[in-house]
Amino acid sequence: MKIPSRSHVHMLSYLVVLLLLPLLASSADPDPLQDFCVADKSANSISVNGFPCKPASKVTSDDFFFDGLTKVGDTSNIFGSNVTGGNVDNFPALNTLGISMNRVDFAPGGVNPPHSHPRATESGVVIDGQVLVGFVTTGNVYHSKVLNAGQMFVIPRGLVHFQKNVGVGKAFIITAFNSQLPGAVVLPFTLFASTPSIPDDVLTRAFQVEEKVVESIKSKFSS
Amino acid sequence: MKIPSRSHVHMLSYLVVLLLLPLLASSADPDPLQDFCVADKSANSISVNGFPCKPASKVTSDDFFFDGLTKVGDTSNIFGSNVTGGNVDNFPALNTLGISMNRVDFAPGGVNPPHSHPRATESGVVIDGQVLVGFVTTGNVYHSKVLNAGQMFVIPRGLVHFQKNVGVGKAFIITAFNSQLPGAVVLPFTLFASTPSIPDDVLTRAFQVEEKVVESIKSKFSS
Amino acid sequence: MKIPSRSHVHMLSYLVVLLLLPLLASSADPDPLQDFCVADKSANSISVNGFPCKPASKVTSDDFFFDGLTKVGDTSNIFGSNVTGGNVDNFPALNTLGISMNRVDFAPGGVNPPHSHPRATESGVVIDGQVLVGFVTTGNVYHSKVLNAGQMFVIPRGLVHFQKNVGVGKAFIITAFNSQLPGAVVLPFTLFASTPSIPDDVLTRAFQVEEKVVESIKSKFSS
Amino acid sequence: MKIPSRSHVHMLSYLVVLLLLPLLASSADPDPLQDFCVADKSANSISVNGFPCKPASKVTSDDFFFDGLTKVGDTSNIFGSNVTGGNVDNFPALNTLGISMNRVDFAPGGVNPPHSHPRATESGVVIDGQVLVGFVTTGNVYHSKVLNAGQMFVIPRGLVHFQKNVGVGKAFIITAFNSQLPGAVVLPFTLFASTPSIPDDVLTRAFQVEEKVVESIKSKFSS
Amino acid sequence: MKIPSRSHVHMLSYLVVLLLLPLLASSADPDPLQDFCVADKSANSISVNGFPCKPASKVTSDDFFFDGLTKVGDTSNIFGSNVTGGNVDNFPALNTLGISMNRVDFAPGGVNPPHSHPRATESGVVIDGQVLVGFVTTGNVYHSKVLNAGQMFVIPRGLVHFQKNVGVGKAFIITAFNSQLPGAVVLPFTLFASTPSIPDDVLTRAFQVEEKVVESIKSKFSS
Amino acid sequence: MKIPSRSHVHMLSYLVVLLLLPLLASSADPDPLQDFCVADKSANSISVNGFPCKPASKVTSDDFFFDGLTKVGDTSNIFGSNVTGGNVDNFPALNTLGISMNRVDFAPGGVNPPHSHPRATESGVVIDGQVLVGFVTTGNVYHSKVLNAGQMFVIPRGLVHFQKNVGVGKAFIITAFNSQLPGAVVLPFTLFASTPSIPDDVLTRAFQVEEKVVESIKSKFSS
Repeated sequence: MKIPSRSHVHMLSYLVVLLLLPLLASSADPDPLQDFCVADKSANSISVNGFPCKPASKVTSDDFFFDGLTKVGDTSNIFGSNVTGGNVDNFPALNTLGISMNRVDFAPGGVNPPHSHPRATESGVVIDGQVLVGFVTTGNVYHSKVLNAGQMFVIPRGLVHFQKNVGVGKAFIITAFNSQLPGAVVLPFTLFASTPSIPDDVLTRAFQVEEKVVESIKSKFSS
Repeated sequence: MKIPSRSHVHMLSYLVVLLLLPLLASSADPDPLQDFCVADKSANSISVNGFPCKPASKVTSDDFFFDGLTKVGDTSNIFGSNVTGGNVDNFPALNTLGISMNRVDFAPGGVNPPHSHPRATESGVVIDGQVLVGFVTTGNVYHSKVLNAGQMFVIPRGLVHFQKNVGVGKAFIITAFNSQLPGAVVLPFTLFASTPSIPDDVLTRAFQVEEKVVESIKSKFSS
Repeated sequence: MKIPSRSHVHMLSYLVVLLLLPLLASSADPDPLQDFCVADKSANSISVNGFPCKPASKVTSDDFFFDGLTKVGDTSNIFGSNVTGGNVDNFPALNTLGISMNRVDFAPGGVNPPHSHPRATESGVVIDGQVLVGFVTTGNVYHSKVLNAGQMFVIPRGLVHFQKNVGVGKAFIITAFNSQLPGAVVLPFTLFASTPSIPDDVLTRAFQVEEKVVESIKSKFSS
Repeated sequence: MKIPSRSHVHMLSYLVVLLLLPLLASSADPDPLQDFCVADKSANSISVNGFPCKPASKVTSDDFFFDGLTKVGDTSNIFGSNVTGGNVDNFPALNTLGISMNRVDFAPGGVNPPHSHPRATESGVVIDGQVLVGFVTTGNVYHSKVLNAGQMFVIPRGLVHFQKNVGVGKAFIITAFNSQLPGAVVLPFTLFASTPSIPDDVLTRAFQVEEKVVESIKSKFSS
Repeated sequence: MKIPSRSHVHMLSYLVVLLLLPLLASSADPDPLQDFCVADKSANSISVNGFPCKPASKVTSDDFFFDGLTKVGDTSNIFGSNVTGGNVDNFPALNTLGISMNRVDFAPGGVNPPHSHPRATESGVVIDGQVLVGFVTTGNVYHSKVLNAGQMFVIPRGLVHFQKNVGVGKAFIITAFNSQLPGAVVLPFTLFASTPSIPDDVLTRAFQVEEKVVESIKSKFSS
Repeated sequence: MKIPSRSHVHMLSYLVVLLLLPLLASSADPDPLQDFCVADKSANSISVNGFPCKPASKVTSDDFFFDGLTKVGDTSNIFGSNVTGGNVDNFPALNTLGISMNRVDFAPGGVNPPHSHPRATESGVVIDGQVLVGFVTTGNVYHSKVLNAGQMFVIPRGLVHFQKNVGVGKAFIITAFNSQLPGAVVLPFTLFASTPSIPDDVLTRAFQVEEKVVESIKSKFSS
């Protein structure tokens, strides 16, 4: 899959973000059965629901702190936005604890495209800039508001939502999820850039468009 | 919102289904705290997470049985499919019990368009016909298979999926969800037919199309 | 334990079903912490709550689809019924997803004997035939109804219930559970055919019968 | 329903216990959303999953303490045992807190008949006397042990179990459940004394006995 | 209870924060059973686990957005810190959604005193300043680190923790909890300023101090 | 860390109890996914949320019964009390089952010092003696009562509580928790005897005392 970008290098960074960061999501994870169970990511570790625990004897204070959200994300991609994840995939101490946080950076006009989190409710606070936040209920009602620094929003679990920087400069928000790994269904990629592709006839019938429209959109997200 | 149809009458039936039936979805509802709590839908009842319970003295055996899935759904709409819900909205005894089932009927070539259930995992069995079932993971991998009568599938919670009748006649499946009200995010409606609309500039940036394409799709789902 | 049967071969098939299929059950399993965790059943795999996951790199589309419910179950046993399970024991992709489905076939007059599912609520739909469905609450109220094709029922978690084919031909139902492995406490076996046996004096006091009655029933389920 | 007894007065006391005390059970109730929510049992209170809360302004220290387990239960009934419940039905402060405790008293030779708790795991400690504790797994394996004062047992959620006083004097145990209202499926009553009755033909087929045996057992539990 | 302060007016503001803001906390709330259930706080509303829902017809877009975290908290109290809560008590849309967020402001040297959240895990990000974050496990191991802007921490559910501004200027953090109302057990108040008081002899034995020490501490938090 | 005691030998016994027994606690553990999963504590076993399961083929009836609560605990330590745990750390069959029980013994005047359980609600019954039970809500309201044999109490999850023997002889209570490993935050140790120590300046600011008071208390719990 090749995603066309203003800059292929930039696009790559966006893809890396999407692929490496399990992204966001929000829900009720199983409760912990001990104080902590820092995820063991060693190569020969077995795979379970979540992650196995690092032996308690190897856990240090540093495990409970995470530096990954300190840097501004690179927004030079087709969407003009960047999600930096603070979830169990990069902050292993979150394993079994049912929470994660992200930072999302926006270039002017940048959009965090419509997506949903299969395993979590999301809340967030605008730290800097002016951001339009919108979501759609299962009854197809669209709720939205333009938020300034310090304003907070909530997106119920699994609903489609987006953010757009509608201010003059950069914008930056902090989001929180009630899952260690909320997951993200990013709709442009899910619908038009999966591997393999969703068949054209399914998409044409669903969106009531001609095949050439589907093919055109798919081409924007492939190489 | 007006959805163009082969027949407006038929379309209306589809809409009624979508609006009246809370649809499907799948997840871990809170556990029950008594044998049953049949939903009280009386007009003056208060609203809580789920529903309040009908007084136990008024519960009868009939409450635990439901006739709503006995009839073939009307598939004469733009999608050629029809979802009939057996969830707490029409089968009140499911309240607090964490489960629901649907029947989905398909005309030849009919599609149950890409959608996700914010509150449930879905499994299903093909009862009659030949059906293509597909879903996309959060890593954008598409899994699919053509199923015949008796074959079963599972769609993890919150992931986008669809079914298409690829056989020569009608088709019919029974689905199950681990929530009394899974909810459904039906993507054509969510993205292009919400009230009010998601702004065009968000959709053009997200799907990398020109505004006229967005407007054209929206027009298919409006009146 | 030997269960007397019309045909020992047939009885064997019933036993195999009971022993190999973890049966049914319905409840609120722990939530998933990733899209999927297909159960790893390899011999040297460790044992955890549920199952460890097959490495993601070895998961294929076929993992999410299951053929086990396509065949009519063999009902030539003392009960005249047969449960075919679609749970995590034979459909590994259900691991962590909190749902399972069964098919139950009935000969004319066949009974799925009184049983309960310790870990799940059950719902079901009659696909073919005419079936009496009954359950008893913890307050000892018996609720029942004769259902025809398309009619749906719900059995709250952990309550004792049964089904009986009361029509003229064969019958067939599809059931769903909100657990990957609901478990089944089949009362004739639990009470009278465990290994070792429940002491006679406990059973005579509980059911207010003489020892010879207990011994007689036990003999029906032993060899 | 009339339960024959050594003394009808005593039997009545047993029945009252069974009917008024929601009994035991053990499972994962929904988590509390505040420090406490003392159950409001007032006549005009609405019914919800669990109970609505007494207004916080009316909660006093006495609400958090319960005297109901101080007295030895009356064991002069057909079973020679008596369950006194400390669950949400008589100790309203347990509402939303996911725990309950019972005391069970036994006359010499008394039996707490085979039963299961649909909503809870049970653990218990023998306080006085010598008690046989047994349960049966879904795989029909019977586990049991004779316990003396101070010894503890655990019965996994939903499995059939019983206790019998096998010592020379009275016995007394304290049990705990991970549900505010575990519920109890007491098998002699569930199978043979429900209202209305489970049909004879279901029971004869299930237990492989003649109808006269079923009728005889039913007669022991009716009037 | 009178809490002595550098300024009684300031102290009052701190108390108001503690009493009006349900504080922080983080855990696995029950899952939602519909898209949203905005808390109904009207005076005549009944009380349930969490809150009943505002009628859906009265829910507007504004319900999903919250302005309460926009202002810097008043830190002129004995602790030099201020918690501003974004939980269900002031942001009703969080009801049933299992998440909340706070802002905590610190004067130079200010301390958010040792406390625990009975119903939630907490994570947080330093937005501005330099903050020492520490917590103690149930095994009495103290983990801590000085964090700068953008650094993230996690505090497992129910463990005692604190933050201290160790930089030269003001500091400000955003915290998140996996509960709509985590609750806060603020130890100086819990131990020495409850109404009524914990008896002196309990505290002297527990902390191995003379009564005059207990009385002295209590006097600091009373009037 | 050295805890000064009336007898260092006795103190040691108390410490051993505190360190070896994971103590008490109460909450909603994840639901079991099979009948049982007896904890495998073998040295080379991997670590997961809770514990992996002993192979089912090695499980015997003895696994489900526990002798650890039969002996009176040694109360000759600074607190005059002793907690003996019946949780997953010493009773492996509790793994995945969401329940545990403790016995607490008290010398005359003995105190189980203020503590909280991060993962469980606690209930308990006084078996012998006269015991003052008290807890403090997050709103700083103190609830307490003197209980005699047979009386029951409940402590909501995560709240600070204590018990004190106020009778003339020894006392003994049985407690239950809705978690296999509730954990205990024992405040004297958490605040003043962690390794490493909580900094003095944090404690002096929090409790509004001079550094010498903090140092004095710390010295009581160190060597």
